[in-house]
Amino acid sequence: MSDKKEFVKEITNIEEDFAKWYTDIVIKADLADYTDTKGCVAIKPYGYAIWENIQKYTDDLFKKSGVENVYLPLLIPESLLQKEKDHVEGFAPEVAWVTQGGGEELEEKLCIRPTSETMFSNLYSKWLSSWRDLPFVYNQWCSVLRWEKETRPFLRSREFLWQEGHTIHSTEQEAKQRTIQMLNIYEQVIEDLLAIPVVKGEKTPSEKFAGADNTYTVETMMHDGRALQSGTSHYFGQNFTKPFEVKFQNKEGKEEYAYQTSWGVSTRLIGGVIMAHGDNRGLKLPPKVAPIQVVIVPIAAHKEGVAEKAQELYQTLAQNYRVKLDLRENYSTGYKFNDWEMRGVPVRIEMGPRDIENGVCIAVRRDTLEKQEIKLENLSQELGLLLEDIQINMFNECKNRLKERTTIATNLDEFKKNIEEKQGFIKAMWCGDEACEDKIKELTGAKSRCIPFEQEHISDTCVCCGKKADKMVVWGRQY
Amino acid sequence: MSDKKEFVKEITNIEEDFAKWYTDIVIKADLADYTDTKGCVAIKPYGYAIWENIQKYTDDLFKKSGVENVYLPLLIPESLLQKEKDHVEGFAPEVAWVTQGGGEELEEKLCIRPTSETMFSNLYSKWLSSWRDLPFVYNQWCSVLRWEKETRPFLRSREFLWQEGHTIHSTEQEAKQRTIQMLNIYEQVIEDLLAIPVVKGEKTPSEKFAGADNTYTVETMMHDGRALQSGTSHYFGQNFTKPFEVKFQNKEGKEEYAYQTSWGVSTRLIGGVIMAHGDNRGLKLPPKVAPIQVVIVPIAAHKEGVAEKAQELYQTLAQNYRVKLDLRENYSTGYKFNDWEMRGVPVRIEMGPRDIENGVCIAVRRDTLEKQEIKLENLSQELGLLLEDIQINMFNECKNRLKERTTIATNLDEFKKNIEEKQGFIKAMWCGDEACEDKIKELTGAKSRCIPFEQEHISDTCVCCGKKADKMVVWGRQY
Repeated sequence: MSDKKEFVKEITNIEEDFAKWYTDIVIKADLADYTDTKGCVAIKPYGYAIWENIQKYTDDLFKKSGVENVYLPLLIPESLLQKEKDHVEGFAPEVAWVTQGGGEELEEKLCIRPTSETMFSNLYSKWLSSWRDLPFVYNQWCSVLRWEKETRPFLRSREFLWQEGHTIHSTEQEAKQRTIQMLNIYEQVIEDLLAIPVVKGEKTPSEKFAGADNTYTVETMMHDGRALQSGTSHYFGQNFTKPFEVKFQNKEGKEEYAYQTSWGVSTRLIGGVIMAHGDNRGLKLPPKVAPIQVVIVPIAAHKEGVAEKAQELYQTLAQNYRVKLDLRENYSTGYKFNDWEMRGVPVRIEMGPRDIENGVCIAVRRDTLEKQEIKLENLSQELGLLLEDIQINMFNECKNRLKERTTIATNLDEFKKNIEEKQGFIKAMWCGDEACEDKIKELTGAKSRCIPFEQEHISDTCVCCGKKADKMVVWGRQY
Repeated sequence: MSDKKEFVKEITNIEEDFAKWYTDIVIKADLADYTDTKGCVAIKPYGYAIWENIQKYTDDLFKKSGVENVYLPLLIPESLLQKEKDHVEGFAPEVAWVTQGGGEELEEKLCIRPTSETMFSNLYSKWLSSWRDLPFVYNQWCSVLRWEKETRPFLRSREFLWQEGHTIHSTEQEAKQRTIQMLNIYEQVIEDLLAIPVVKGEKTPSEKFAGADNTYTVETMMHDGRALQSGTSHYFGQNFTKPFEVKFQNKEGKEEYAYQTSWGVSTRLIGGVIMAHGDNRGLKLPPKVAPIQVVIVPIAAHKEGVAEKAQELYQTLAQNYRVKLDLRENYSTGYKFNDWEMRGVPVRIEMGPRDIENGVCIAVRRDTLEKQEIKLENLSQELGLLLEDIQINMFNECKNRLKERTTIATNLDEFKKNIEEKQGFIKAMWCGDEACEDKIKELTGAKSRCIPFEQEHISDTCVCCGKKADKMVVWGRQY
């Protein structure tokens, strides 16, 4: 056990310095590493495998809902970026510009896409002619670049991977439905795959995406009570289709501008998984998204028959699960236990000579650290139940935290007291005035997360100015 | 049938102007389109779906061979690019430079990756310490940018999608084995999935990748007899690991530089599929890679029961195949037939009221245009055999062309005569002198494709200079 203690010391205590704990996990669990390109990380195999699982699950849901994938250019000419006023104001300050190519200065500089509304709109104007062509429900998996000043792996990186869906429709109603449909898919990804409950709602006008009429969001709560904006879906109306002339002949034979949406989730979700589930032993991965669901660590593997039996077990389990067999010779068993715990593998199977004699093994859950003896002949079946139970338990733990750390406030004193004590979410009424949002942020550090779809009546008046208010807003400090 | 004739006219005749035929197919089959970013195309859903099928097939083979996926930064600092002399000479003239970010001029400019040997090598130097860590067998699916002057969709685009694998090993032998292993995987992808036979071999020194010791290639022959370099695998020795200081402690406890490889295929393969299989009716897709394997076109779909029966058939077939049901009302049946032929769908199912009465349908093969009546109750099973047969037949057609248009030459006159008459591949002996390669290119437009692994003895002397020669080279004009 001495190995164990030493090992855990290497990770910063989660309650003492959550930010440092986070960075420790990212680096020590081999999820990502810093590079010589400032503000950009390299996603390592273990981190990228999580992303692949997120991609696969999400893309399957997309395709079932009629989404088609495309790939549009990385580089956007300056003149295109400038066509929608709010959009260029929002993004121009944080883009990277290509000014030289093939040994020459370019006539027009090109930005690396920070997002692709302009590129999609420009092409849609070319591709669209009749209502019969609609809708276009296109998505791309790609990387984008935003010149952030402060960066953190996965959470805020200059370059990050994401998907961006861009759709156009013949009616406002259909476009609005698509906006919500995709938000619901994000809810499913985050709750079902990542085991993190969401608060779903609409952003206040000041928190909207640059150029959108409405921005919808799924917000999640991290270990320390702070919020992570985890996915957004935007309704644009005709804000882009007018300047880009994305028009079609409608059923009545008249020209009309199309109605547009966009929506995205990114590798930020990996940051969310780390921060929502992790603990002092390290990462804790929900079974559905874990690259390795089960690790087999043979004990006294040098003894006769142990490695062979472990290999046999591996072959059996690999038919149904993502399994790893750890036969490394230069690490102690204790080190291996800690290592796989730190990497968040949901179930560890321990098996020594005596266990083999008795036809059993020990299964250890990463979430509760509970151990149980399981007959080898039942193991494959039992594992399925165990992994399901872990997935549910992890979701419930987050759900309980969300509940416990969400409080209500009817005035600013309550608000301040609650946020200091719980650092969680606060439900409070809001009059609709941006000045109140600004004041709350200044006084408490909390921003409006969203106006949840599930409204509650907390009081009759704005938590800030005391004027009449009929909207309940969820507030919180954020990542 | 009047529709049909009119329709086919829209595509340039393949024998008259192959280049224009190619562009027609790319645009009219909705594979890709030009954009306002010069030299960069947008890959549309139908084209991207082909890429997704290539990716899935290739990535599965990668993973089975122990490859792990990662994602490294898009932007490479100038100082990193410059560390390997041959490499920077090869790539610096054709990169795009980011010189401004976040509203400021950058201290050091960053290039958009044209390939990532430098970025991988730099990180490997950080990640590697002991022989126990090796090998690193990493790959990334991403886009790269090369500032080409002349561009053509899929074949030569400024930005293109690809995978780039980068591995390091503790021994020269292991690295060399990996180089060939990956080349063999490319052979399998191109022959088995894309139904195009390859010529596999080593590039001559003048055609090597910038910085490589050896470059291996799989070369394919297009409809017009020209070659397409379809995938390459490079052995670097220690050319990058020395300047980047990628070293490890070997089993004897001594410091040693690692041995490196890289390998890639790109969306150029889509261009290969178009140009190897297409004909005057348009695209012709091998069933294994076709986004739509079977299209159901009901005849007289307005008549009672036809649409319902077609829908029912669709549901049944969709369990085993990628199927499309064409119920568009505003297109004639003739138009639909031509449209799906042009898009290269391997099998078309026609079904009208009388067919339904008789419990049959008509299946039309895209490759041979043969029609056959099939009982509806047997259709799902029969389709499997039919698609398999189409896949094999398409491969054999290409194989026959490769055979017919590959000739031998023992002197320059024969060489010139053959290339003018057949525009195909020429097998001829080569002395090893670059001057002979240059002269052949100047006189005939043909370049050395590779020194095939399967050598034949054509003559004793170099086809160009007449000196002693023991290497057989395959030559050809290229895309």
